[in-house]
Amino acid sequence: MNIAIVGLGVIGGSFAMGLQAAGYQNIYGIDINEETLLTAETEGMIQKGFRDGKNILQEMDVIILSLYPSQIAPFVEQYQSILKKGAVLTDVTGVKAAIIEQVAEVLPRTVDFVFAHPMRGSEKKGIEGADHKRFIGANVLVTPISSNKETSLKMVEKLYKDIGFAQVTRVTPEKHDEQIAYVSQLMHALSVAVTNSAQASEETLIFAGNSFQELTRIADINTELWSELFLNNRLALLKSIEQFERELNALKKTLEENDEEKLRKIFNQAAQKRREWY
Amino acid sequence: MNIAIVGLGVIGGSFAMGLQAAGYQNIYGIDINEETLLTAETEGMIQKGFRDGKNILQEMDVIILSLYPSQIAPFVEQYQSILKKGAVLTDVTGVKAAIIEQVAEVLPRTVDFVFAHPMRGSEKKGIEGADHKRFIGANVLVTPISSNKETSLKMVEKLYKDIGFAQVTRVTPEKHDEQIAYVSQLMHALSVAVTNSAQASEETLIFAGNSFQELTRIADINTELWSELFLNNRLALLKSIEQFERELNALKKTLEENDEEKLRKIFNQAAQKRREWY
Repeated sequence: MNIAIVGLGVIGGSFAMGLQAAGYQNIYGIDINEETLLTAETEGMIQKGFRDGKNILQEMDVIILSLYPSQIAPFVEQYQSILKKGAVLTDVTGVKAAIIEQVAEVLPRTVDFVFAHPMRGSEKKGIEGADHKRFIGANVLVTPISSNKETSLKMVEKLYKDIGFAQVTRVTPEKHDEQIAYVSQLMHALSVAVTNSAQASEETLIFAGNSFQELTRIADINTELWSELFLNNRLALLKSIEQFERELNALKKTLEENDEEKLRKIFNQAAQKRREWY
Repeated sequence: MNIAIVGLGVIGGSFAMGLQAAGYQNIYGIDINEETLLTAETEGMIQKGFRDGKNILQEMDVIILSLYPSQIAPFVEQYQSILKKGAVLTDVTGVKAAIIEQVAEVLPRTVDFVFAHPMRGSEKKGIEGADHKRFIGANVLVTPISSNKETSLKMVEKLYKDIGFAQVTRVTPEKHDEQIAYVSQLMHALSVAVTNSAQASEETLIFAGNSFQELTRIADINTELWSELFLNNRLALLKSIEQFERELNALKKTLEENDEEKLRKIFNQAAQKRREWY
């Protein structure tokens, strides 16, 4: 089985390492950056690297697109005529419905595309940050579409398990996007807004404890990637922000009204929910 | 020098351990819970424990009030007639202006009260969670008032350094409360609101990654303590929430208007600020 990884960044590079470690042998890399390819070859992450897909994709059985959301459909369109019949493509994008819609317009009927979202991001960028060990124990979400063959879904799911993912969950693209808006994108929105507050100053760190450091961690954000993720899922994210604002407003009201009883109720509800989760 | 620690919870207990470890010898504990006193005595945290202050406070040179905000002024009032002349009292409360105002009304002029806020909280509760090692390297804020003697301030600051605190910073009570509203209380408000969102469900954890786990950590909140902290600082906290909402609204607008350029600008600002901090 020939596998191509397109985009050898922190995720694509970790994938290559993970597949090698799992015993897969014919791993090829495609990246526009010559230096990245050289690193990947030198460190044994891939058999061979290519600057584009034109001399290699026709022989690939599996193509893992580790690209930014905006690059997925254009890549498929560019190479649609040379893809091997029966090939399985898959992505690692953090939004699903919008990408699925874009890909549907350009995907040849001779191949299958399994949309997936490995749930282990990184603040690091580039192949230097790649490390397949961080996949160990992580979750991956697979969002089947009606044209997917069960064998393709199973094959992609097996790849994830082989490189260390602990749990594979199938969900609809819509549910994926709604919940990701809440558990991931909203967290980034809050972290960014906290960090950009006019109250922030050079003295802030004198006062800051663990919670501030933790909560602002993801404000050191990959601007290009996350602006694409946000805008490709903007309606779901707006809904998540509104639901959050409803709770924040309830809390504000207890402060405005000095209502200790209601504030305790809000705290108790949160504390109980958090303890059920972790 | 005789030192009394009033309230042997997670902070008071850590204080006792820290002072013992630093070589202080006459450490006494006051707590309403008999079992807590027994634990503290058995584990050598204190020389002797007392259920109240009436037989011990008159001999104490330093009294560390490790109590909830609402208990500070009533405690001082209860024992104001027996406090030793020249004694130094200090607190560990996370809000300052409101507590200072309450204490000013009941504090005898024969003693000095140094208001301080050690910046190392805990989700743990009770003496079982006490561990003085967590103070090592932490910051403490001291908020001098006009009646404080420099010798009292220096003495309290030395206690903190002796038990492992790395940095002692003097700030005005007002500045303390404004910045704590931002870096600490706002974080707790956001964490609670996220956790209470109607989007949260039993399935949430299937989708959640590190950021959700981190950001909701402090939603497992000590309800009694934090409702007091919030309400004793409610105007400053409301202001911090408003400043935060301003930034969140700017971000929302970019989603509503699909404005990638402005969204990237917001992300870049946050990323740069976060990298300057840590």
